[in-house]
Amino acid sequence: MPDTPPMNEILGADTPKNWGKWGPDDELGSLNYLTTDEIMRGVQTVRQGKVFTLMVHMGNPGGDPVWPGRRGAEKLMVMDEGTWQGENAPQFPGGLHYADDFVTAFLQGSTQYDALGHVWYDGEIYNGYPASSTIGGLNHASVLPIAERGIVGRGVLIDMARHRGKPSLDKGETFDHRDLEAAAEAQGVTLDRRSILVIRTGFIEYFYTVAASEFYDGFNEPGLTYSRELVEWFRDMEIPNLVTDTIANEVTYEPKTGAALPLHCALMRNLGVTFTEICRLDKLADDCAADGQWDFLYTAAPLKVVKGTGSPVNPVVIK
Amino acid sequence: MPDTPPMNEILGADTPKNWGKWGPDDELGSLNYLTTDEIMRGVQTVRQGKVFTLMVHMGNPGGDPVWPGRRGAEKLMVMDEGTWQGENAPQFPGGLHYADDFVTAFLQGSTQYDALGHVWYDGEIYNGYPASSTIGGLNHASVLPIAERGIVGRGVLIDMARHRGKPSLDKGETFDHRDLEAAAEAQGVTLDRRSILVIRTGFIEYFYTVAASEFYDGFNEPGLTYSRELVEWFRDMEIPNLVTDTIANEVTYEPKTGAALPLHCALMRNLGVTFTEICRLDKLADDCAADGQWDFLYTAAPLKVVKGTGSPVNPVVIK
Amino acid sequence: MPDTPPMNEILGADTPKNWGKWGPDDELGSLNYLTTDEIMRGVQTVRQGKVFTLMVHMGNPGGDPVWPGRRGAEKLMVMDEGTWQGENAPQFPGGLHYADDFVTAFLQGSTQYDALGHVWYDGEIYNGYPASSTIGGLNHASVLPIAERGIVGRGVLIDMARHRGKPSLDKGETFDHRDLEAAAEAQGVTLDRRSILVIRTGFIEYFYTVAASEFYDGFNEPGLTYSRELVEWFRDMEIPNLVTDTIANEVTYEPKTGAALPLHCALMRNLGVTFTEICRLDKLADDCAADGQWDFLYTAAPLKVVKGTGSPVNPVVIK
Amino acid sequence: MPDTPPMNEILGADTPKNWGKWGPDDELGSLNYLTTDEIMRGVQTVRQGKVFTLMVHMGNPGGDPVWPGRRGAEKLMVMDEGTWQGENAPQFPGGLHYADDFVTAFLQGSTQYDALGHVWYDGEIYNGYPASSTIGGLNHASVLPIAERGIVGRGVLIDMARHRGKPSLDKGETFDHRDLEAAAEAQGVTLDRRSILVIRTGFIEYFYTVAASEFYDGFNEPGLTYSRELVEWFRDMEIPNLVTDTIANEVTYEPKTGAALPLHCALMRNLGVTFTEICRLDKLADDCAADGQWDFLYTAAPLKVVKGTGSPVNPVVIK
Repeated sequence: MPDTPPMNEILGADTPKNWGKWGPDDELGSLNYLTTDEIMRGVQTVRQGKVFTLMVHMGNPGGDPVWPGRRGAEKLMVMDEGTWQGENAPQFPGGLHYADDFVTAFLQGSTQYDALGHVWYDGEIYNGYPASSTIGGLNHASVLPIAERGIVGRGVLIDMARHRGKPSLDKGETFDHRDLEAAAEAQGVTLDRRSILVIRTGFIEYFYTVAASEFYDGFNEPGLTYSRELVEWFRDMEIPNLVTDTIANEVTYEPKTGAALPLHCALMRNLGVTFTEICRLDKLADDCAADGQWDFLYTAAPLKVVKGTGSPVNPVVIK
Repeated sequence: MPDTPPMNEILGADTPKNWGKWGPDDELGSLNYLTTDEIMRGVQTVRQGKVFTLMVHMGNPGGDPVWPGRRGAEKLMVMDEGTWQGENAPQFPGGLHYADDFVTAFLQGSTQYDALGHVWYDGEIYNGYPASSTIGGLNHASVLPIAERGIVGRGVLIDMARHRGKPSLDKGETFDHRDLEAAAEAQGVTLDRRSILVIRTGFIEYFYTVAASEFYDGFNEPGLTYSRELVEWFRDMEIPNLVTDTIANEVTYEPKTGAALPLHCALMRNLGVTFTEICRLDKLADDCAADGQWDFLYTAAPLKVVKGTGSPVNPVVIK
Repeated sequence: MPDTPPMNEILGADTPKNWGKWGPDDELGSLNYLTTDEIMRGVQTVRQGKVFTLMVHMGNPGGDPVWPGRRGAEKLMVMDEGTWQGENAPQFPGGLHYADDFVTAFLQGSTQYDALGHVWYDGEIYNGYPASSTIGGLNHASVLPIAERGIVGRGVLIDMARHRGKPSLDKGETFDHRDLEAAAEAQGVTLDRRSILVIRTGFIEYFYTVAASEFYDGFNEPGLTYSRELVEWFRDMEIPNLVTDTIANEVTYEPKTGAALPLHCALMRNLGVTFTEICRLDKLADDCAADGQWDFLYTAAPLKVVKGTGSPVNPVVIK
Repeated sequence: MPDTPPMNEILGADTPKNWGKWGPDDELGSLNYLTTDEIMRGVQTVRQGKVFTLMVHMGNPGGDPVWPGRRGAEKLMVMDEGTWQGENAPQFPGGLHYADDFVTAFLQGSTQYDALGHVWYDGEIYNGYPASSTIGGLNHASVLPIAERGIVGRGVLIDMARHRGKPSLDKGETFDHRDLEAAAEAQGVTLDRRSILVIRTGFIEYFYTVAASEFYDGFNEPGLTYSRELVEWFRDMEIPNLVTDTIANEVTYEPKTGAALPLHCALMRNLGVTFTEICRLDKLADDCAADGQWDFLYTAAPLKVVKGTGSPVNPVVIK
């Protein structure tokens, strides 16, 4: 794609930004929209006492879905009942035994929250912090402030795969805010301001049904695609958090310019929209289709990793 | 402590067990008490729209509080703005940059949920699965079913440190169910059946105020201590989840017999009570003391680690 | 292979063993044959001042050759010149900069020495130590004593691939001690007692010329194959160390019985022959073919990993 | 040390350099001095058939000696006899069992070779490669070319601790080339051109005799100290390799200016002298003192880590 223009040309100098809106030291971005009113509005959606968790399995024997170049978590057993058959096993008064394990993992190698400073262009991350402040660890806009605050609000599921009558969207298949609104209307749910936007494409389920080679061949996930109008829609809707069942929350290569991940730039870096990626949404979607309730209390909190670029998370949805 | 009797003598052959109560294949234990009624009861406690997260920092520069023999998470930067100054940096169409990081960690090396199969004695783990089924990974009663389900219910904070007028309980200081009930009464909160029991000792805050050598010297955490009556109280109260700000949720060495961690055996292995350890509770406790609301909606979900003995977690409390 | 008999039947109760030959506490096995005389004999082979190193690359971008189930080393950069562009870079008086890196690796995931206690059957490892002594780390016959001693002696290269006129032996292709002697005679080198036996099959070079899927498909490495006579030949020849360019130093599945790796049992566990695996031998072989000198001073020392089951190594050959 | 001048002032613009001496693509530096003549000269020192290995233990239960900020290797057992008691243990035809382990380690966290590109100042590493070429891995002057070549030559041990009548030199204690020559004369050994210089201070042995807190308190290792004459001596002596029993091969802070590690700059970066650090030399030194032979064949080869900044190594000395 040698003639892809640079990101600042693609987005334009006057692309919408929320920098400074919550002060020069802000590291939370659009999560600031989740005020106590929004939290209470989320709580009021709970009517049935049903709970769903949105994380994929971590350390799946058949492999975990990850961005090319990363690998899934590797878990090693440190102690188990076998350990206690050995001559040097620890001895506790009373003789209890226990199991212990250890993991090596990319912090963004499973269902995860991105820090707002995870992606940038033109030498600045969210809120204008210099890109050099990412060196050695995110000194600003890391995942830690997000984890300290937690995310609680009204979530709405838009099932794009179901809306289009497919088990999963195709590689490179796109949709935009008008498609989201049409799907919401068809589902009978209101997609109003400050809702946590949860979008199902079916693409992570597709991962579990095919060989890894097929999944990664010509890697180009389906998803939202960049337009100026879409960015303005996100700004005006004050979307605090975008949650999807793809690895990167948007079509990998924007079809018109070929740019990789322009919405990470336009939404995350510029508007401060928090991204939650690699969710598993099929059980929730089946339930919403069955009972017709597509909104819910969404709660999640990534791990409090100091200076982290992101963190694994297991969001909890309550209907 | 050479004369500590074995755990089965300490607890007795007729010690209360919930094995089989939820079927021979159960891996959730007392979390089964969290029915839709209990979930709705938790939701109904939310009155203000306040949110608190209970995890400690992970990868704190000064060290993380962990059980002796484990170490805190080690985070390494894989990509940052420095990477993109190099001749071999990746090139994406449009030119975005991003940061990435990697962690090596004990799965129980931070705020965490224990799997029900984490601790055992006499060759059987929770629900009678053989201890040998822990070998190479927990084939039964791992943290995965807990993570799949998520924990949602009414939580109650009992602030034992505040009740005893101390910043933190002392090393080896104990309390029991009667103390919990007295503290609850003093706080003006009802500690009723099926509540998620959150206990503050102040001991994790103590970790952050002293040198590691002082914290670990003569290691003996304060906490609940074993008695037959206490176990029966947990059984009768149908406590689904015990959450504390200590590394192991109970006094390390039970004073009468010297046994290490008998409540892990009596409550977790035998009754199936889920343990959440190494929480940070000071902000929540200060808020509860200020507004007098000591109960709340407690939501948490550990990571979906396949065969995991436990998992880091960042619980979310909503008042 | 459901009718493969157990290893003790395959090898027989009277299979040759060197247990006790060097005392009940021995952990070095046939390396004991490398006396000062043998060391001097090795030194005397040096006539030209040529040096060869036998390790494969570690962390090769295209992947490293490893036993199925292991993975190659993963190297992460911790500090580099990019680090020093950050605001929190360390400051040393005088201002030097440095680079640092970190690795996660299987200790047997590259060219490596096996500890004598690496493989066993019937509940005992080399010299009769109980198999339970491997639990939590090799408490006996680990790689540490081998690393403390170092391996120095006369090495002889037998190029089986060249002898058979192939770039590499085929999957599952076998040879035995008579083939080694025939090849030695054809090469014009004496394969005498206490020589370090270095065998080239070309199979590791094959790894670097094909896709991983082809290399691992129907995994069955070429190599030496079990017979009672072969074991007696190793015993009588007092071979201290077997070095090859395959992952496991023998045909993976012995053709007659289907047994996996019986020579690990017969030679390593029973005779105490040290195994060096996954070497790269093409440059050495080309040189030997060119100058006609097939023997040399062989020196190697694995890392002194406490209780290690093996260790990466880079053997040095001097002609 | 706020008034320490920058390294280029301390060393001076005309400080001796070997850049370009072996061509613009050289990555081996002074190891080029180890020609076949030098290799044969090393071989000719072997008179007794004695072997010594110089590595420290890796994964010592009491901790490994490392530069502040690094940590020692962490070894985890992946498989052992306990594994084979489990229901999911692998099944091999014939039934062999094996042990396997895994390590996480800093590549420079044990006895190790530094890559020539490990340390720099003024934006250039050895031979004038840009410092930016270290980003993401050493693209030039990594440890790989050193590992490919191997190090073989005549080594000479200078026992500075013994020469000064101490078990180990004191923190911050210095010596220079005149001291080395005086010690050599006292030992009765010739320290001639192109010898591999092995220096014992006793400081690593000191590590094993005291608490870590004492070892690291006021961290300032003893060692060689910078002077223009010392650098010229190394240049004129054509020293290919400097091997010591300290973590960083020189006094940590040069006393006159306070500069950290100026010899890494003057010798490694500018002259291309290879550094081998954290060796254990007591057994070798005791033997040399006993038999009066202070020179030997030195052989070593770090691991072939692609783009590595350094690598663990276990040097082998033959007398």
